[in-house]
Amino acid sequence: MSRDGLIDNVNLATFAGEGYSEIRDAAIAWRDGRIAWLGPQVDLPGEYMDLSRQDGHDGWLTPGLIDCHTHLVYAGNRAGEFEARLNGVSYQEIAQNGGGIAATVLATRAANEELLLAMSLPRVDALLAEGVATLEIKSGYGLDLVSERRMLRVARQIGEVRAVTVRTTFLGAHALPTEYANRPDDYIDILCRDWLPRLADEGLVDAVDAFCERIAFSPAQVDRLFDAADRLGLPVKLHAEQLSNQGGAALAARHRALSADHLEWLDEAGIAAMRDAGSVAVLLPGAFYFLRETRLPPIDALRSAAVPMALSTDCNPGTSPITSLLAVANMGAVLFGLTPQEALAGITRHAAQALGLADRGQLAVGMRADLALWHIQEPVDLVYHLGQRPLAACWIGGEPRDSV
Amino acid sequence: MSRDGLIDNVNLATFAGEGYSEIRDAAIAWRDGRIAWLGPQVDLPGEYMDLSRQDGHDGWLTPGLIDCHTHLVYAGNRAGEFEARLNGVSYQEIAQNGGGIAATVLATRAANEELLLAMSLPRVDALLAEGVATLEIKSGYGLDLVSERRMLRVARQIGEVRAVTVRTTFLGAHALPTEYANRPDDYIDILCRDWLPRLADEGLVDAVDAFCERIAFSPAQVDRLFDAADRLGLPVKLHAEQLSNQGGAALAARHRALSADHLEWLDEAGIAAMRDAGSVAVLLPGAFYFLRETRLPPIDALRSAAVPMALSTDCNPGTSPITSLLAVANMGAVLFGLTPQEALAGITRHAAQALGLADRGQLAVGMRADLALWHIQEPVDLVYHLGQRPLAACWIGGEPRDSV
Ligand SMILES: [Zn+2]
Ligand SMILES: [Zn+2]
Repeated sequence: MSRDGLIDNVNLATFAGEGYSEIRDAAIAWRDGRIAWLGPQVDLPGEYMDLSRQDGHDGWLTPGLIDCHTHLVYAGNRAGEFEARLNGVSYQEIAQNGGGIAATVLATRAANEELLLAMSLPRVDALLAEGVATLEIKSGYGLDLVSERRMLRVARQIGEVRAVTVRTTFLGAHALPTEYANRPDDYIDILCRDWLPRLADEGLVDAVDAFCERIAFSPAQVDRLFDAADRLGLPVKLHAEQLSNQGGAALAARHRALSADHLEWLDEAGIAAMRDAGSVAVLLPGAFYFLRETRLPPIDALRSAAVPMALSTDCNPGTSPITSLLAVANMGAVLFGLTPQEALAGITRHAAQALGLADRGQLAVGMRADLALWHIQEPVDLVYHLGQRPLAACWIGGEPRDSV
Repeated sequence: MSRDGLIDNVNLATFAGEGYSEIRDAAIAWRDGRIAWLGPQVDLPGEYMDLSRQDGHDGWLTPGLIDCHTHLVYAGNRAGEFEARLNGVSYQEIAQNGGGIAATVLATRAANEELLLAMSLPRVDALLAEGVATLEIKSGYGLDLVSERRMLRVARQIGEVRAVTVRTTFLGAHALPTEYANRPDDYIDILCRDWLPRLADEGLVDAVDAFCERIAFSPAQVDRLFDAADRLGLPVKLHAEQLSNQGGAALAARHRALSADHLEWLDEAGIAAMRDAGSVAVLLPGAFYFLRETRLPPIDALRSAAVPMALSTDCNPGTSPITSLLAVANMGAVLFGLTPQEALAGITRHAAQALGLADRGQLAVGMRADLALWHIQEPVDLVYHLGQRPLAACWIGGEPRDSV
C-alpha cells in the first residue's frame, strides 16, 4: 500500500503554529507517511501533481483524532450496576456486593488475552469510526503482575490488528488490590521494585499513571512511584483533583508530568505548577456527565495561564462508558464551556502533547500523515452536533484506512 | 423482496403486555411484514421452519426504534451561533443580529425541495444507522404556506427514499412570522381557516402541534388551533411547559392530545389531565442538555400516575442538534433518572403511542415486523453506553434494510 497521497479541493484545520488556524481552498500532499506540503491549492508545486489524488469535495481535513486517556481494555460488564443505581441502589451497597472496580478486576483477571482483545475491539472500532488515529490505553484492572501484563499486551495487540497507534500507560496504582488490603505502601513497593521495571523491560510501558485520591493513593505514595518511573526514564501522568484537592497536579508537575487529568478541584498553585512544567490539563467531561458532578474544572484559569487543555473519553466501565470522542468534544463545549476551537485542539494538538508525541496532532510539513476528512461545512460542526457521523475518509501514516 | 422471515438464537425485549418484558432463547417469525409468531425457540411451530432463517447469535431483538419528535427538515446551519455563545455572545445579541429561529426560517424559505431533502438526509441516515424505523417530522421553519408545504412534502419524500415510516406534524404555530408581527391572532386565524385545511387536504398532515409559551403562542390561541384540528379529525400534540407553566398540558389533554412534550414545568393538574386523556409525556433531555437547564420534568409524579413516558431527540438546529436516539436514551437515564427499561420503552412502545400508532413499538403477533437486532449482552447495554454502534441488522415492514 502506498504511503504517498494528495488531497485537493479541501479546507484544512491545521492546529499548527500558535493554536488554531485554517487554510481554505487548500491541498495537502504526503510522501512516505509524512506530510510533504500543504497550502492554498493554487500554490501546489508541480512535483506533487503525480501523486494519487483524492477530491476533498470542499470538506474539511483535520489531523487524525487522538484519544489520550482511556481504560478501554477490560472484561465484564457493569451495565447492571448502572441499572441498579437508577433503581435506587447506592454506590455503597453496590461496592459491598462486590460491584464497582472490584467487579471489573475480577472479570479482567479471569479473561485470557483472546477474550480481552475480543471484548475491547468493539470499543476501539467505535472510536476509529470517528477518525481516531492514536489511542492511549491504561492498565489498572489487573492489579497483579500477570494481569497487568496481559492488559498491556492486549493494548499492544490492538495497535497491530487495527490501523491505529496505541500508547500504553501502566496504571498499577489504580486501586489497592485485595491481596494488599491495608498495606498500600507494600503495594507501591512491589510496583516500584518489581512490576514496573519488568513490564518496562518487556517494552509494554510508554508512560506511568496513578490515581491520587483519598480513596486511592496518597501524594507520598504517588511520589515514590514517580521516582521509580523517573529512574526508568518513563514519563508520568496523573489522575488528579477529581474528587478532592490533593495537590496531585503540583506533585505531577514536579516530575515534569506529560499531563494531569480530571482536575475538577485543581487550585491556583496546581495551575501555576502545571504551566511551569508544561503539563497538559486533560479534561474528562464524560465522567463529569455520568457522575452528575457539579464542580467544573477551572477552565478560565487554565486558559489564562495558557495551560494546554486536552479532552478525552476516559472510556471505562464504571464512570465513563463512552466511545465517541466527538461526543466528548461536544460535552467539553456544552458542559465545560470550551470554545469549539479549544475542544478541537483538545482532541488533536493538545492530546498529542498529553502523550508526549511531537509528530502528530497538527497538519504541518514533517508531521505524520494521520488525516481525517469530514463531510462538514465548518470545523465547528464537529463540536456542535451530537450523534452525527461526519467522517468521510481517514489515513493512518499516509495509508487509507478501510474501516470507515 | 420477501417480507417473510425468521430469526432464531435470539433474545427478545418485547415491550408487550404490561410494560417491559423479555423472552430469552427465543425465535420470531413474520409473514407479509407482520409478526406471525414469537416465543421460546423450543416451541417454534413447524410451519415456520421453511422461512428464510437468520441466526441472532444470542444477541437481542427489539422493536425498530421510534423517534417521535423531530424538526429535522431544515436548511441553514446554526453552528456559528453555538460558537458565538461559547465565545460569550448572549442569546439576545444573536437574536438581534437575525440569529435564532429567524435564521433557520430564512434559510428554509430560500431552499428548494431538492436542497432541503439533501440537507436533511444525513440527519435521517444517522438516526437510521441506530435502528430507527419510524420518524416524526414537524414543519415550523417555513411559517408561510408555500414553505410549510415544502417542508411537509420533503418529510413525505424522506419516507419514500429511505426505508422508514415518516409521520408528519404541522407546526405552523412554532413561532410568529415577521409578516404577522404583533398580530398573533391573525396568524392563528389564517392557520385555522386556510393553511391547515389545505395542507390536510393535500394529505400532508398526520397531526397538529404548537409551541405554547410566553415567547410563542398563548393557551387561548393554541385552543383555537386545536379546535380547527378537531374539526378536521387530526390528532394534536403540544410543546408544553418547557420554560414556564402555561397549563399547556391540560389544554392539550382537553383535546385528547396524543402527547405533551418537554414538560419541565408540568404541575400536578397537568399530570392528572394527561393521565385521564391517555396523553403520552414526551421527554426531550437533549434540549435540557444543550440549554444547560436545571429544572427536571416531574418524573416521579409521571411514573406514579402511570403516564407513559417517551423520549425523543427533538432534533433541531437551535436547542437540540442531536441525531442519536441511543444518546437520548442515555440522557434520559443519566440526566432524568429513568430506569433503562423506561428509557427503552420511551423509544419504542411509548413513542409509538405518542404518534397514535397501534401497530408497532412492541414485539407481538400482528405487529409490523419493524425489528432491530443488537450485538449486546443485555438490553441495558443500549442505554448505559454512549457512542457505541451496536446495531447488527434491521428489518422494516419485514424487509431487511441494507443501509446498516
Ligand atoms: Zn481515568
Ligand atoms: Zn420540539
